[in-house]
Amino acid sequence: MPHLVTFGEIMMRLAPPNHERLAQAPALAVTYGGGEANVGAALAQLGLPAAHAGCFPDNPLGRAAAGHFRRYGVDMRPCVFSETGRLGLYFLEVGASLRPSRIVYDRAESAFARLDPAAFDWPTILDGARWLHWTGITPAISAAAARACAAAIAEARRRGLTVSADVNYRRNLWQYGQKAQDVMPPLVAGCDLVVCTEGDAEDLFGIRPAAGAPNGFASVAGQLIARFPQIKQVIATRRDTQSASHERICGLLFQDGQYYETVPYDIAPVVDRIGGGDAFLAGFIYGATAYADDPARALAFATAAAALKHTIPGDVNLVTAAEVEHLVAGNTTGRLLR
Amino acid sequence: MPHLVTFGEIMMRLAPPNHERLAQAPALAVTYGGGEANVGAALAQLGLPAAHAGCFPDNPLGRAAAGHFRRYGVDMRPCVFSETGRLGLYFLEVGASLRPSRIVYDRAESAFARLDPAAFDWPTILDGARWLHWTGITPAISAAAARACAAAIAEARRRGLTVSADVNYRRNLWQYGQKAQDVMPPLVAGCDLVVCTEGDAEDLFGIRPAAGAPNGFASVAGQLIARFPQIKQVIATRRDTQSASHERICGLLFQDGQYYETVPYDIAPVVDRIGGGDAFLAGFIYGATAYADDPARALAFATAAAALKHTIPGDVNLVTAAEVEHLVAGNTTGRLLR
Amino acid sequence: MPHLVTFGEIMMRLAPPNHERLAQAPALAVTYGGGEANVGAALAQLGLPAAHAGCFPDNPLGRAAAGHFRRYGVDMRPCVFSETGRLGLYFLEVGASLRPSRIVYDRAESAFARLDPAAFDWPTILDGARWLHWTGITPAISAAAARACAAAIAEARRRGLTVSADVNYRRNLWQYGQKAQDVMPPLVAGCDLVVCTEGDAEDLFGIRPAAGAPNGFASVAGQLIARFPQIKQVIATRRDTQSASHERICGLLFQDGQYYETVPYDIAPVVDRIGGGDAFLAGFIYGATAYADDPARALAFATAAAALKHTIPGDVNLVTAAEVEHLVAGNTTGRLLR
Amino acid sequence: MPHLVTFGEIMMRLAPPNHERLAQAPALAVTYGGGEANVGAALAQLGLPAAHAGCFPDNPLGRAAAGHFRRYGVDMRPCVFSETGRLGLYFLEVGASLRPSRIVYDRAESAFARLDPAAFDWPTILDGARWLHWTGITPAISAAAARACAAAIAEARRRGLTVSADVNYRRNLWQYGQKAQDVMPPLVAGCDLVVCTEGDAEDLFGIRPAAGAPNGFASVAGQLIARFPQIKQVIATRRDTQSASHERICGLLFQDGQYYETVPYDIAPVVDRIGGGDAFLAGFIYGATAYADDPARALAFATAAAALKHTIPGDVNLVTAAEVEHLVAGNTTGRLLR
Amino acid sequence: MPHLVTFGEIMMRLAPPNHERLAQAPALAVTYGGGEANVGAALAQLGLPAAHAGCFPDNPLGRAAAGHFRRYGVDMRPCVFSETGRLGLYFLEVGASLRPSRIVYDRAESAFARLDPAAFDWPTILDGARWLHWTGITPAISAAAARACAAAIAEARRRGLTVSADVNYRRNLWQYGQKAQDVMPPLVAGCDLVVCTEGDAEDLFGIRPAAGAPNGFASVAGQLIARFPQIKQVIATRRDTQSASHERICGLLFQDGQYYETVPYDIAPVVDRIGGGDAFLAGFIYGATAYADDPARALAFATAAAALKHTIPGDVNLVTAAEVEHLVAGNTTGRLLR
Amino acid sequence: MPHLVTFGEIMMRLAPPNHERLAQAPALAVTYGGGEANVGAALAQLGLPAAHAGCFPDNPLGRAAAGHFRRYGVDMRPCVFSETGRLGLYFLEVGASLRPSRIVYDRAESAFARLDPAAFDWPTILDGARWLHWTGITPAISAAAARACAAAIAEARRRGLTVSADVNYRRNLWQYGQKAQDVMPPLVAGCDLVVCTEGDAEDLFGIRPAAGAPNGFASVAGQLIARFPQIKQVIATRRDTQSASHERICGLLFQDGQYYETVPYDIAPVVDRIGGGDAFLAGFIYGATAYADDPARALAFATAAAALKHTIPGDVNLVTAAEVEHLVAGNTTGRLLR
Repeated sequence: MPHLVTFGEIMMRLAPPNHERLAQAPALAVTYGGGEANVGAALAQLGLPAAHAGCFPDNPLGRAAAGHFRRYGVDMRPCVFSETGRLGLYFLEVGASLRPSRIVYDRAESAFARLDPAAFDWPTILDGARWLHWTGITPAISAAAARACAAAIAEARRRGLTVSADVNYRRNLWQYGQKAQDVMPPLVAGCDLVVCTEGDAEDLFGIRPAAGAPNGFASVAGQLIARFPQIKQVIATRRDTQSASHERICGLLFQDGQYYETVPYDIAPVVDRIGGGDAFLAGFIYGATAYADDPARALAFATAAAALKHTIPGDVNLVTAAEVEHLVAGNTTGRLLR
Repeated sequence: MPHLVTFGEIMMRLAPPNHERLAQAPALAVTYGGGEANVGAALAQLGLPAAHAGCFPDNPLGRAAAGHFRRYGVDMRPCVFSETGRLGLYFLEVGASLRPSRIVYDRAESAFARLDPAAFDWPTILDGARWLHWTGITPAISAAAARACAAAIAEARRRGLTVSADVNYRRNLWQYGQKAQDVMPPLVAGCDLVVCTEGDAEDLFGIRPAAGAPNGFASVAGQLIARFPQIKQVIATRRDTQSASHERICGLLFQDGQYYETVPYDIAPVVDRIGGGDAFLAGFIYGATAYADDPARALAFATAAAALKHTIPGDVNLVTAAEVEHLVAGNTTGRLLR
Repeated sequence: MPHLVTFGEIMMRLAPPNHERLAQAPALAVTYGGGEANVGAALAQLGLPAAHAGCFPDNPLGRAAAGHFRRYGVDMRPCVFSETGRLGLYFLEVGASLRPSRIVYDRAESAFARLDPAAFDWPTILDGARWLHWTGITPAISAAAARACAAAIAEARRRGLTVSADVNYRRNLWQYGQKAQDVMPPLVAGCDLVVCTEGDAEDLFGIRPAAGAPNGFASVAGQLIARFPQIKQVIATRRDTQSASHERICGLLFQDGQYYETVPYDIAPVVDRIGGGDAFLAGFIYGATAYADDPARALAFATAAAALKHTIPGDVNLVTAAEVEHLVAGNTTGRLLR
Repeated sequence: MPHLVTFGEIMMRLAPPNHERLAQAPALAVTYGGGEANVGAALAQLGLPAAHAGCFPDNPLGRAAAGHFRRYGVDMRPCVFSETGRLGLYFLEVGASLRPSRIVYDRAESAFARLDPAAFDWPTILDGARWLHWTGITPAISAAAARACAAAIAEARRRGLTVSADVNYRRNLWQYGQKAQDVMPPLVAGCDLVVCTEGDAEDLFGIRPAAGAPNGFASVAGQLIARFPQIKQVIATRRDTQSASHERICGLLFQDGQYYETVPYDIAPVVDRIGGGDAFLAGFIYGATAYADDPARALAFATAAAALKHTIPGDVNLVTAAEVEHLVAGNTTGRLLR
Repeated sequence: MPHLVTFGEIMMRLAPPNHERLAQAPALAVTYGGGEANVGAALAQLGLPAAHAGCFPDNPLGRAAAGHFRRYGVDMRPCVFSETGRLGLYFLEVGASLRPSRIVYDRAESAFARLDPAAFDWPTILDGARWLHWTGITPAISAAAARACAAAIAEARRRGLTVSADVNYRRNLWQYGQKAQDVMPPLVAGCDLVVCTEGDAEDLFGIRPAAGAPNGFASVAGQLIARFPQIKQVIATRRDTQSASHERICGLLFQDGQYYETVPYDIAPVVDRIGGGDAFLAGFIYGATAYADDPARALAFATAAAALKHTIPGDVNLVTAAEVEHLVAGNTTGRLLR
Repeated sequence: MPHLVTFGEIMMRLAPPNHERLAQAPALAVTYGGGEANVGAALAQLGLPAAHAGCFPDNPLGRAAAGHFRRYGVDMRPCVFSETGRLGLYFLEVGASLRPSRIVYDRAESAFARLDPAAFDWPTILDGARWLHWTGITPAISAAAARACAAAIAEARRRGLTVSADVNYRRNLWQYGQKAQDVMPPLVAGCDLVVCTEGDAEDLFGIRPAAGAPNGFASVAGQLIARFPQIKQVIATRRDTQSASHERICGLLFQDGQYYETVPYDIAPVVDRIGGGDAFLAGFIYGATAYADDPARALAFATAAAALKHTIPGDVNLVTAAEVEHLVAGNTTGRLLR
């Protein structure tokens, strides 16, 4: 029985090694990732079982993508293998210092975009699970994906699961004729926890910090909770990006009218820029179980998990709970462990 | 001034090294290829200048593809960089022995498929050139590509260039609503030289060997020439595939009512299965210049070039004319050259 | 519910690439394998679910080994992670031509050797399964492993599973004070199907071909069935090793007093020498389901699977049922699949 | 028609990866570079066409070097392939932190050093071009190279091209019996723009900052312009090297009696220490066209280009004009671009 | 004749490249190291001949390990190849930033642990040598290793060699039934020079800084010398670890009642965390010869050597004396050397 | 004390992996080799100690080359590190099937070519040795090298060592103004054993098979012995090259008027074409000791060693005597060794 079920697209990621540019690269490192399944894989490393529902082309690429997540402990049996559509791809040029990392997406016409909502039997998929997670990318991909997402949320609510979303507004993705501003609110209304930055709140919900609010995030989070009463927690990371090689992040939480913020972590060098937010959320889901009555502790755990993610290649946060706790306990100097 | 101009699509090729399968590969070797540009690049290695007309997305992938062919001596200035469409890809699992190599195409919605025929100024592109080459893949991709191909052939004919085509019928490609059997004949009618197997002749033109014909290829070639009087030469390779690691090929030519066939070459091991036909044609174009009055010699050169191609990684035949001549001269034992 | 449950040790495999020797290798390719789990992973590729029971050290190496098999579709939940013992290793120097491949084992004191038989709850593990597979390596490793193996067989018999064993006698392994000749017979007595060569039959059971028997394998197999009446099928591959780069194998089966033998397959080059026997058995288990009434067909499937294995890097046979059928259908020439 | 023509030597660069030392490296990364052609290749990335004149051995190494620069958009047709001499090499040990990167040159007796000045038909090579660039390395290599360089400059002057030089004095190179102090002044006299540090000015021309001059570079640049009236602009980068992994650079320009200096950029980590100066000059040539009336803007562009170069492997600055402008616009934090 | 003889275990080191974790690594970089032989190899790079006595399994792994140290100039003829025991291994996950590097040891039952003390003919091994070095790891491994170590020290004393030890207390290693606190003192009593941190001094000898001592290291070193009158010098490095990617180290020496401390060096990034202490000691042994009368100079040399080590992959410090002197002379900025 | 001393040049070898051509290779595999030191290294693997005298540039390349041979057991102390000259290089394109492997030499002006004959103190170098080996490459490189070679031979003769030479005539190498036909005879006159093919015998000594001789090699060898009475044995391999991937070799010996020839070995695939002759000679030197009275056995050993060499990457034959004996004993099928 999974603790967590995620729903979303998984792509192949192709990246030149050693900071090469695509124009010069004779080989590309291959891995697979998706903003939802990354959360499940990270949670499985922390010790809580996860399952993923998605849709792949029934070809060697789709099977390879599924195998990648199985390897890291995600139960992929809820996934569908389809005769139509391709595996989405993204190309990642890894920057350094003043040069940003850059993503070239190649995800159009994917099997996931063309999924059949009826192919997902949510009562079975969610049976025994305690948490459902989705992101704002999924309803952006296609009308079918949005419908499947709505069905999953509805069933999760019926069963009393905790539902979380990373609202993650990406303007370019919304191409199928619906507006995020119309599609997202009813989906978000079914959530207990959302990841939402100030920018997302404005873009999606027209919510801005109250004039003179001392803390923009808290102001926005309070308004979100007011608008969507099912939401109890709003979280986010704040990035103070120094360079492509140096991130500084801290964790933010608003809950029960109270604002929490962690100390910042410096990550230098950044080994992998991708997946920090997913690792943060996986850490928060873990923390919500391990430290159910201590939101500050859960937030600290989530933030440390996010920081560690950026030291690990690939989309997935391959760290154990003990390793995260080691950092939470203040061991920030990276002293050799024998 | 190029000797040869080619027109067609170029794709990124992604292949697991060391006979790995996609399901297990942590990295993919990257190269670029296309059945038309491969001919130009091979010809440039042989010492005759080549140029290519095609269409790429205006992104790092498209630019990388163009750079790849420039590296091997192809003038890419006739290419168009477009805001619409993606770079087509193909994934190649390299087989061994009893296990076939396998290609997974991912080329839908490419910039080339969506090209604007008006973007190619054929009088300028063909100015000073002596030869135009295209393949049956191009008109299969989209109506726009077919139109551009027809325009190129027409202009080439006006200018008196030699026109060649590898008719190369691939049933799966013809998806845009036209039939190959309708589109190809008027295009082939403009050719001086075609690569055409017995299978292609039947599929595309309904031409079969005459009953009791001692030589199927010669019979078919004769009928092709009869139907399309511009054609003077029909060529092909005959493959006697022993295993994924062992090919045997010989070259066939029908011209002036006469049939030519080379001795076969054994290639074991096959280093790269792709691009042999393109190398064959490049070799024949070279031979048509170097041995204008000796078609058997030109055919021998072309076949040796094709055999050498299978010993070289990538789509492009990186051999010099001297290296081909060395093999034509009977040096088949691969004795170390110091 | 798994179709197949396997029980046995999994080791890390470390091999210099490109035919290097250990004395010169700056890097080693890492994979994981075990004679039992390899069968499960191959079966999962063929489409039948598999689970594995084993024991790993609770450290990054043990977790990596488990993840490897999850990736290829094996349910690893029956595995135990233990505080004691190490992950067994083997180093593989990949030979070529006249130079044999060579294995240096480093598997002493492994977590598997030190497993606690009580840690495996066989009724639960075998619940819903249809087949149990073990090999003669497991009872050779330690008394504890032998006891756990006996318990698994006993429970499988109680539940009516099919039980198979690859008897696989390796003299060097039996170091814990018991003799294979004493330990193996009662275990083999619980089997429905055994893989057993003539050499194994003599070494383990003192069974030799009857004087003047026209077919040694059939003679031995018949005696085995006579001695262990639960056994209904005896299978084996016959290898006619031409060189480290060229194997020839055919499949043998004795059942119901009848002897079956397939045509031989030549594998040249051999990409990976390891795991052919495991692929053979996985193929036979698949065939026993797909062609329940046609043992010759099942044997043909198994032998083709084994042949394909030697074209794939790693211990595990990453081929689909369709790919095996393609070879069974006589497509032995490795012609490119587009 | 190229915008820029460069003339100089191109070498193969061989570098151990991952900060290895030559004593331990099992493989070397191969690329090609030369202080002049690097400028052309960088300019081609920025969108202005470039051509290069040089001399290679007519062997696979020479052809590979030429192909490398074609790939990045440089027209190599003005190059000569010669029967005499070798391809110069340099070995690069990539340092880190306190350990400097170290170059071992192996360039003696190169084809370029032995070039025949008559082999370069400068009127044809420079036809239609607007800019000629050379460096002080070229006349240091051999008397023949110096003569060819003088001929190029003379022809460029005749045609009214802008001529630039990186005077780049390297004492060790001047081995053929002439002194830099004698050879360089007449060549520099033909330049419109020079890159010249204070050290170079003293070593080559005996020019030192005027006593009490508030700005050494400006003082020296003013004297240079006084001595060589054709010169209108003197530029340089100032490096404040923090470690092998951390550079700080700013750009300097003296023109029309006025001194310009950019803000400094910190590059940490330095991905590749080589080619920053060449990227700077390419950026300045681009800027001289794009911002003809705004020398400060051109200098800002050049300096940003140089900073980005150090984040890219190889000798050549693979960045687009848009990417440089992004940095000039103040986006120094390397924030991920999706 | 070696200047230095070392005695100790050598292990194979297996490390995922590019900061990968073991769970995801498809290949492992291989090198070999041991706290004693590393000193000898580093000294040989500095120009003083070294020999090593140890014990390897007589298999390809043991021979590879010995070859590795021969490559770097260590005379391995005093080593024994044994029929019993394995080659010890260690797996190194290379951390970054906040994530520590982590070692998984797999060294039990090694050939070294099972060595026969009688196999080492110390009078012959030490003949002509001037220095013997051992570490506290050796007597921790097994009673046999401890006995051999004692015999080596005794013979070295008889011959008047300088004897040094890195006392290096690792609690986990002492598993064979003796206590470090009993075994180490008589061995240390035979030393002229020891590397000993405050922590080691307390753990092994119960020595703590005197109350109110202004300098803990000096206080402890003084007490050590008082207790073990043969000791004349106590040295150590002090690490101020900023992160897994940033170390700061300085060197400490107590001798003749006087305390010396170097300026600190910052190493950022750390290329390889392992072997800094061994490089420090090799530097000090070199310095003790080159600067016999200037302990501060010897200490400066040792500390610079240790700093450089962390910029070089592998266990061994591949730097020349000139490179160390370059750093001692204050060239800390890593400026490119042509 | 070495059994064998070799004298000759060592070069860096740079080869594209995976059958790539230099024009496409992004990395080159590095190793080191020389026709003389290869013999010593191979002999050391077989268990007989070897030393090498040569001359390297005193730079990181020269030191790396020396370290390479130390790693494989060669005592490099007789080598000289010189301030003048470079390390010779050779580039190797590895062919396949019909495409030959091809070497591009870049060895002019090497430190070895410029060696000072007085730098080699032959009485000390040869002290205690039993065998001296040189090749015809050494006197071809420079007059200085030829003089040093003559001095070594003379001293070896004085001391009663066995002297062997691989006469190995390479026309292109003789560039310094002397003719091989003048230089070689007095050197060969000092040899006890020569490797000499029929072609070499004709080119160097004008010796051809007697008219009607049934065996050309035997006829030529007999004449060689007649002309140079010190020679007692003439050996050679006969290669029947099938392709770049398939060699067939047998060993030839003429001694005491008798001709010996081994059975041929097929090597398919050839992993590395280089060094077979050096491995053959090392095997013969080993055999001359191990089977002093059985020349046929020594020849069999030598031929098996040569065959195995072609299965191993690099110039050096990394096989043990036991592995060679395994092949001599008829184990040609490469059956897996566990």
